[in-house]
Amino acid sequence: MMTPQIPKGFRDFLPDKMALRHSVIELMTSVFKRFGFQPLDTPCLEYAETLEGKYGEEGDKLIYKFQDRGNRMLALRYDLTIPLCRVVAMHPEMVKPFKRYHIAPVWRADKPQKGRFREFYQCDIDIIGSPSMYADAELLVITHAVLSELGFSNFIIRINNRKLLNALALSADVPQQAIPDFLRTLDKLDKIGIDAVRDELRTKGLLHKQLEECLDTITATHAYSSKQALAAFSKLVHGIPAGEEALRELATIRHVLDVHAIPEQCYRFDLTLARGLDYYTGPIFETVVTEPQIGSITGGGRYDNLIGLFTNQHLPATGTSFGLERIITVMEELGKGIHQRSLTHVLVTFFDESVAADSMKIAQALRAAGVRTEFYLSPDKLKKQLAYAANRAIPYVVIAGPDEVLSGCVTLRNMQDGSQTTVPQSDLVALVRQRLSLS
Amino acid sequence: MMTPQIPKGFRDFLPDKMALRHSVIELMTSVFKRFGFQPLDTPCLEYAETLEGKYGEEGDKLIYKFQDRGNRMLALRYDLTIPLCRVVAMHPEMVKPFKRYHIAPVWRADKPQKGRFREFYQCDIDIIGSPSMYADAELLVITHAVLSELGFSNFIIRINNRKLLNALALSADVPQQAIPDFLRTLDKLDKIGIDAVRDELRTKGLLHKQLEECLDTITATHAYSSKQALAAFSKLVHGIPAGEEALRELATIRHVLDVHAIPEQCYRFDLTLARGLDYYTGPIFETVVTEPQIGSITGGGRYDNLIGLFTNQHLPATGTSFGLERIITVMEELGKGIHQRSLTHVLVTFFDESVAADSMKIAQALRAAGVRTEFYLSPDKLKKQLAYAANRAIPYVVIAGPDEVLSGCVTLRNMQDGSQTTVPQSDLVALVRQRLSLS
Repeated sequence: MMTPQIPKGFRDFLPDKMALRHSVIELMTSVFKRFGFQPLDTPCLEYAETLEGKYGEEGDKLIYKFQDRGNRMLALRYDLTIPLCRVVAMHPEMVKPFKRYHIAPVWRADKPQKGRFREFYQCDIDIIGSPSMYADAELLVITHAVLSELGFSNFIIRINNRKLLNALALSADVPQQAIPDFLRTLDKLDKIGIDAVRDELRTKGLLHKQLEECLDTITATHAYSSKQALAAFSKLVHGIPAGEEALRELATIRHVLDVHAIPEQCYRFDLTLARGLDYYTGPIFETVVTEPQIGSITGGGRYDNLIGLFTNQHLPATGTSFGLERIITVMEELGKGIHQRSLTHVLVTFFDESVAADSMKIAQALRAAGVRTEFYLSPDKLKKQLAYAANRAIPYVVIAGPDEVLSGCVTLRNMQDGSQTTVPQSDLVALVRQRLSLS
Repeated sequence: MMTPQIPKGFRDFLPDKMALRHSVIELMTSVFKRFGFQPLDTPCLEYAETLEGKYGEEGDKLIYKFQDRGNRMLALRYDLTIPLCRVVAMHPEMVKPFKRYHIAPVWRADKPQKGRFREFYQCDIDIIGSPSMYADAELLVITHAVLSELGFSNFIIRINNRKLLNALALSADVPQQAIPDFLRTLDKLDKIGIDAVRDELRTKGLLHKQLEECLDTITATHAYSSKQALAAFSKLVHGIPAGEEALRELATIRHVLDVHAIPEQCYRFDLTLARGLDYYTGPIFETVVTEPQIGSITGGGRYDNLIGLFTNQHLPATGTSFGLERIITVMEELGKGIHQRSLTHVLVTFFDESVAADSMKIAQALRAAGVRTEFYLSPDKLKKQLAYAANRAIPYVVIAGPDEVLSGCVTLRNMQDGSQTTVPQSDLVALVRQRLSLS
């Protein structure tokens, strides 16, 4: 006999956890479809070379890879974006813009820790082939729709633009090769505060008077309206064409959010947002919740040059990803989980062999009427069958013993309060549907 | 630039393929839930030792495995059954019987060929902790429900019992060590015919008079009713307790199928069915379609000793698996596919910036009413936007140019016949819902 073990950093989801996962995925899917997004599925395994070199050095280390029998290196996908780029490059005939959603697991050989797993679901929407800022804005409208409909009220979508950051670095005289380091430090402002950021930049030899003023402005904009923030940024990058273009892009995004009546408190133009991945080229965004502190629950941005790694076609693209695991964690911590422990509505008991056929027919009649009905599989003592229903949190039990069957009746037991109603068999389906408020 | 490639034996599913896949999965899920089954999810990766040694020598060779950084061997799951056994063994607190469904990909490093892939979906239902034949029968009732509701009419569920096969081998004096070989040959009867089976058994030195008579009986039973077949088998294994028990089990299954009004032509007790996997201990079953010839589309059986590899708890179990890929292939070949190429109902055009806000609001109003609506993202020529809708097979286009917006109107274009209707904006939602027959 061997000890059953699950690999470290991996999880099983038992039915009580699956109910919430399914309902979140269903809600997302319905919102994505509502905006005209279509499903795409790609294999979990890719050639390693397809994935490597796109996530930065740190990311590459986290790719699970191995040699197959044909001596090709295969890898488990690290995200859903690179596989999408590969598919799009392989199918030049695809109608553009191509809007797809993809909800599926990805793998990272990361050190397991609280809230970080080696297999986790991403829920991605991407728009391929459109340079329009209406595309980026639409992703944010959808982000807002999904989170609102999930019952979130305490989220902020942080929005920035890589081109704006580059212009900022230029205007603050940060040397080209120090820009990534500069952005990484700036990105920490929310976490470590302005003083620590200043110290870090000073240590790195990047701080000088002009940058100090920038930092003050950036910090101040956190309290500004979105319109005021864009105006303040405009002063920082005045006369730098890429910066001015970036601000026009953000203004378009703001206009679209406004048209969709997205409340100001749900988003913020935030110059400290950097986002890790190397491949972003334009607007970038992520969503944070104020409570609990858990990091970002969505993240994305524009990646106009990424598909160009695989094809000569120029295909601008933008996308965002919802982190299912963190969304679930937040919902559970805020008590927004689903309390219904069972999907099953009714258990039909198995009294004895003499009435088994009748009981199974009752179960079938309930199922035909849309009632999720389980038939108990053995003629165990009634007490044991009721205990099973209680343990499974099945709300109703139908009891059809020989007496009931003889008189054409059946008993419906409410497991919540133990009350029982005996009705003619022909009335059972209507009664159950009424009790369950099925319409 | 690198050439985009998908690993051999793996597939992308573009949106036009996903529609049918999703609808089949949704239908299965709804049937599974209707019978009280609950969802379970397990990781795609397991420790290799969890999987190895359970599928026979041939199966073990097909497991994708590799060493992780902690020097543990990991493996991609080969099916959904062993992971289920591992989970159940790790959670002795689980309420039994435990009925779960699991629809997910599995991997086999098989030689790719027509209809055989290295990553494919299995759709499994299993009942853990019940020795009752009502459990096995329920799986067959569900098999019938799923296939009927998918529109299949030409399928036969073949049913046998491992214990019956062993009894048959005993009564036909097949030596213990030759039984697997005997069963493999018998399994080919449908494919190669009775004469070839006879020849093969003769070559193996297993054929003698008594077995010849058995083969004649077995062949004859193919034309029998299920009741007659069981009676005929009964003569073959008369006096062998395991065989008689097996027949009582099959009789119970037959009774339950009868109670559920499963037509006789949908199933057959078939002594030639062997099923490959070593771990079956009781009833075994698979479904074949008569047209097209594609092998089995479902398969399963009872495996009372498998969970015992991981725990001291005795947990009898039975399950069956629907092969999504083959089911899809059959549906496509029989023209039962879904012809609707787009999930999206309406495209709202983007005439120019002056009316973009109005157009986006129209799109939002349609979405709020449950209409799947895409907003075109750039003010391209109307002709191009209409071509996009046509290519995407979106059935309706809403056109709101400056004239329409000024007069509070909007034009709805039917992409099928090119007809256009101009209505007040306030009437649009009702009109679209009516055209789409949404209720």
